[in-house]
This record gives sequence, C-alpha cells and structure tokens, in this order.
Amino acid sequence: MKSRAAVAFEAGKPLQIVEIDVAPPKAGEVLIKIHATGVCHTDAFTLSGDDPEGLFPSVLGHEGGGVVVEVGEGVTSVKPGDHVIPLYTAECRKCKFCLSGKTNLCQAVRATQGKGLMPDGTTRFSYNGQPIYHYMGCSTFSEYTVVAEVSVAKIDAAAPLEKVCLLGCGVTTGIGATRNAARVQAGDSVAVFGLGGIGLAVIQGAKQAKAGRIVAVDTNPGKFELAKSMGATDCVNPKDHAKPIQEVIVDMTDGGVDWSFECIGNVNVMRAALECCHKGWGESVIIGVAGAGQEISTRPFQLVTGRVWRGTAFGGVKGRTQLPGMVEQAMKGEIDLDPFITHNLPLESINEAFDLMHEGKSIRTVIHF
Amino acid sequence: MKSRAAVAFEAGKPLQIVEIDVAPPKAGEVLIKIHATGVCHTDAFTLSGDDPEGLFPSVLGHEGGGVVVEVGEGVTSVKPGDHVIPLYTAECRKCKFCLSGKTNLCQAVRATQGKGLMPDGTTRFSYNGQPIYHYMGCSTFSEYTVVAEVSVAKIDAAAPLEKVCLLGCGVTTGIGATRNAARVQAGDSVAVFGLGGIGLAVIQGAKQAKAGRIVAVDTNPGKFELAKSMGATDCVNPKDHAKPIQEVIVDMTDGGVDWSFECIGNVNVMRAALECCHKGWGESVIIGVAGAGQEISTRPFQLVTGRVWRGTAFGGVKGRTQLPGMVEQAMKGEIDLDPFITHNLPLESINEAFDLMHEGKSIRTVIHF
Repeated sequence: MKSRAAVAFEAGKPLQIVEIDVAPPKAGEVLIKIHATGVCHTDAFTLSGDDPEGLFPSVLGHEGGGVVVEVGEGVTSVKPGDHVIPLYTAECRKCKFCLSGKTNLCQAVRATQGKGLMPDGTTRFSYNGQPIYHYMGCSTFSEYTVVAEVSVAKIDAAAPLEKVCLLGCGVTTGIGATRNAARVQAGDSVAVFGLGGIGLAVIQGAKQAKAGRIVAVDTNPGKFELAKSMGATDCVNPKDHAKPIQEVIVDMTDGGVDWSFECIGNVNVMRAALECCHKGWGESVIIGVAGAGQEISTRPFQLVTGRVWRGTAFGGVKGRTQLPGMVEQAMKGEIDLDPFITHNLPLESINEAFDLMHEGKSIRTVIHF
Repeated sequence: MKSRAAVAFEAGKPLQIVEIDVAPPKAGEVLIKIHATGVCHTDAFTLSGDDPEGLFPSVLGHEGGGVVVEVGEGVTSVKPGDHVIPLYTAECRKCKFCLSGKTNLCQAVRATQGKGLMPDGTTRFSYNGQPIYHYMGCSTFSEYTVVAEVSVAKIDAAAPLEKVCLLGCGVTTGIGATRNAARVQAGDSVAVFGLGGIGLAVIQGAKQAKAGRIVAVDTNPGKFELAKSMGATDCVNPKDHAKPIQEVIVDMTDGGVDWSFECIGNVNVMRAALECCHKGWGESVIIGVAGAGQEISTRPFQLVTGRVWRGTAFGGVKGRTQLPGMVEQAMKGEIDLDPFITHNLPLESINEAFDLMHEGKSIRTVIHF
C-alpha cells in the first residue's frame, strides 16, 4: 500500500516527505497505522551520519503509537484494531535472554534489526522500486509500518496514542532505569546528569520512588525550572563550579549519592556520574549512548571501595509484559507525560522537530499523521 | 614489653628480625600475642616501595591469629585469653557505613590506620627509641601487637591459629567475594583470573556455591593442577590463544560467564574479566589492587548491554560479625585451608617467605612465632 513517510535518504540531510510503498506483513509480522510518534535524539544521531550502524535510505522513528491494520500468518498476540506501541527492544519470551528472567535484551530479531531488515532478511519499504531500510525494528516516521509480532506491545485502546507514544522510548527508559536497573527506595539520594527527555523521566521515576534528594545536573540552566517542577530538589550547573562536578555532588550529599544516572552519552560525564556515588554502596547507571569507539575510565579503587557501574537499555523494561501497565499508569496520571510534550507538529513539518531539538528548545515534539 | 618482630626499615630491603618495644594498649585497644601469620602479596607490595601509602619503618603483616594478652580501658568485647584474628577492615557497628547494612567498609579507624598510627594518632611500636609505624591496623609480623578493639574478631579458642590466620585476609577475601559481592548460585558459570591465594579461594567459594562451570585463568600453567583439585572445571592460559582471553571465554561458555573475578590487580585483566561476562546479566568483581594511578577502561556499550562492574574489599565480610562463623566452617572442613598452606617457617626465616612468593613457588607461607 501507499504510505506517507519521512524518509532519510542521506546522512546529514533533512528528511523528505514522500509516498513510499509498504508491502503486506509476512508470517509473524504486523502492519500498523501510526497515529503519532515522538522524535528522539537517537533519530537525530542516526540522521547525522555519526551512528556507525546507520543505514540509508531508511525510515527512522522508534517512539510511536498506532493501530494494527493487518497481521501476517501465525500472528496470535494482536489483531486488526488493537492499539499498540512498537518496540525497539523485542520480547519473544522464548530466547535464552527472555527465559533468564534477568534482562530485557531479547535477541530474537536483533541481528536483522541491526541491519535494517525484517527477520526474514528483507525490507517491506520501497520508494520508486528502490528498497528502503527499516530502523530499530520500528520505523514510526511512516503512516504505515511493518514490525515483527515480538516487537509489538498491545495497550489499552482508550489510551491517547499521541501521548503514550512517548512510552515507546524516552519516558520508559528513564522511569524504567529507576525501577529496574536501579532500585531507588524512599529516602535515597539520586543524581541525574542531563535534563533531556530521559533525564526528566529519571527525575519523575525517582520522585515516584520517594527519593529524598534529587540532584539535577546540566550545563544549560534553562532546563532547571522544568526539572524542579518534575521533582528535582537541587539543580547544579557544572560551569558554576571550579571543582569537578563529582566533588561538588559528594560535598552536597554527605559523601555521595545512592544512585546516579548518565542520560547524555558523554564518557566524561559517565565517569563523573560514577565518582559522585557514595563509597560502599552507590551505584551509577549509564543510559546515554556514547559515540563509536569512545571508552569510559576510572580508577579501580572506585569499584573496590563499593561503587557499582552498570547500564541499561530501554530502562530494563520488557516491552510486551510491562509496557501495558505503564500505559495504565499514564492514564491514571501516575506517570505524567504532558511535561515532556513541548511541541506538536504534522508529519510534513518533521524537520522542524529536529531543528527544535538541536536548538535545545524542545523536550519532545510529537508528530501527528 | 619486648617483642621479637620482623621490621621493614626501608623499602626494597629485606625485613630485619629485631627486638622492638611494644607499649601497653591504651583505651579501646587490645594487646595480642601473635601465634602465626600468613605472608600476603600486599605485604610484599608495600615492602617493595611501590605502594604510594607505604610507610617505613613499620611492622608489616595483616593475616594473623593470636591470643589477647591485655586490654585497654573500656574494652568489653574481648578479654585476656580470647583467641582472635586482627582485622584490617574494622567493624565499629556505629559509623554510617556499618549502620547502612550495605557495606563492610567501616570508617571508624580508617584515617589513622592509613597513616600507620593507632586511633589516637600515635604508635605503640619503637626500636631503640625510634617510633615504628603500624600497618593496616594489624602489624602481625610481631610477637606482640596492639590493635583497636573494633579491629578484633573473637574466634573459637579451639580453632588452630596457625591455619585460621589465613582467614585474616586472602581466603576470606576470595570466598567472601563469591558470597557477598557476587551471589554465585548453583549452576552458575564463573571465571577466575589469577590463581594466587585469593583466586584459589574464589574457586573454593564458587565450588561451595555449586557453580556449574569454574574457568580458572592464569599465564602460569603450573598452577592449574591445584586449581583443578580445588574445583576448577576448566583451566585456560591466555598465552595459548591468539584471540583476546575474553573472547576465548565467551566462546567456551555460550556467551560469557555469570560472574568473573579479577584476583591480580592488573587493569588490562580487569577489562578482560568484565568483557568475558554474559550480555544481559554477567557481573565482574574486582578484587585485585592496581598500581597507583592506573585506570580501568571499557566501552560503555558493555554496561548498557547489561554487564555490571563492581569490586570488593575483604570479600565484603564484616569481620567481627562474620569471621567467627567462617572459622567455624573451617573447623568443620566446609572451608578447607590446608591447600593454601604450601610452606611453614619460623619468624626468623620470614624473608624466605617473600622469596618463595616472588618465585611463584608458594600460595601461602605461614610464619610461626
């Protein structure tokens, strides 16, 4: 079928709004009509050309909400009319990883997803006969997209898709990190590095967990008001201090925080986030994605004296199992999505969403089809 | 009183057996007659002069067993005649760290201990009127030593001091790491880097936990027989492989191990130990102490995909609370100390113990007074 889509034909160039062809779902696949999608930094990272795994031409987008239109052979968990969120972290419930009960990193479609293809090694997208790659198993910048059944979370049909689409990535990643990677408890102290969508979601997750102290860190003080309104108790700009930021936070928090979160993707900040943790028990969670080839470093003494360094993808959330519940929480107001949505735009204006992001003016722009 | 002691007068020189003066215990202190002490790599590291915190002249030694001779004012937890193991990791049960329940890193005497002094800032040792420093709060290379009450674990008087002294450091560190820093479960896979006393103790701890696979790694294949006799299921010499050792272990273990332990103090091995862990859940524990200023590095992707990097000191064991139980386990044979004791020597021959260690011929030499 024909589908309006924003296609990334070339790295570093604006997306082009064109009409692409979307082939029907094959066995184990689901055709979804996307109603809304967020635009995330990861989309911008890939579009920039800096992502070594970026493929072009492709349909980007991985933070969407939509309705099932058609299912391929053998699909049993969703049917046409179901409201869904596509998952860039699948959940097959059959692989070693899913069965371990210890991780959300399902490997069922990982290999082909990384190559921009469906599990059978082909693509469902084309433009004037030229194949177009999928992206992160989602490709939500298209009116119609095809994803694997294991990459679909069925949600309450009453949920507003133009809001809960944000649970497809950023908000779930941040809140999930406080619940699954970290286990923030009432009274704990928390430091959050980077106040984009994920950092703000971490703040919201920490507040829900009744953290006693939530220290928000960013070099842009323009973000502090929103951070405070979402639950930050202290806001710190590293540029205001001569000392390394980890020392500033250790001093502020009587020896360091119980939990820290790096939400930027900067390896130097990752080090600071670890080193601002409390000796004996503080744990640091890396959420941000660093550039290719970059490495983190610290003195091993930091770990021998009890700090723990870990990371998380998609907040450790098992999408098909846990995302429906998070949608329920959003519908009840326990997760507040409104503060994240700073802009709404039609698909035709999607390049403006990237501009707003690059200019630091948006948290999330939601694209409406 | 007069005390035979092996004194480190100068970095890089042999210890000298001399008669030193030991002052009586002050308030909160305990005078102990040492019956036996192990000689550990950390003693050799400090004696070499490479330890930036090493102080001279000093009485080294931190793996001893003895009997209380006299207690200072206010000491209530031990009395003359009690059998004890001195602790380089104190347990005051009052500081923020002890009260947290999350760590064994008591801070009660840390500052003065690091300066080679008793908590009041003075030393109890002298030779010809010249002050001699304490070491790690223990100084077990002296017939008589004075330690803080919070640095004394009271043990069963029936335990053989010439064996259970090894629970003062290496064996407890290794076994404790498998129980407290890691939580090795039945069937888990484990990799152990470095087959000295601590590495062998990790193997013993992993075997007690019924680990399914215990991969022992060392560049000296002469250590493999003992490792196997203690429970290693596989022994690997990195020199036998062209590929990095982490890739070899990942291939051997269907994706990596559940737990790895670095028992050397080599920052490159620490990286390999992390990277041989299984994606999604593998955790690496740093036990070895790296040289001053050295740093560990890896790609953050290793952590974002679910590996965890942590460390431990004294195996996470709370000495006064947990060491008596480990002594009981040794008496029942649940902890087997005999394989660690490769040599026994009188105090007068203590420098031979260092030679044996440097030549790779000993696991532990026990010094008898």
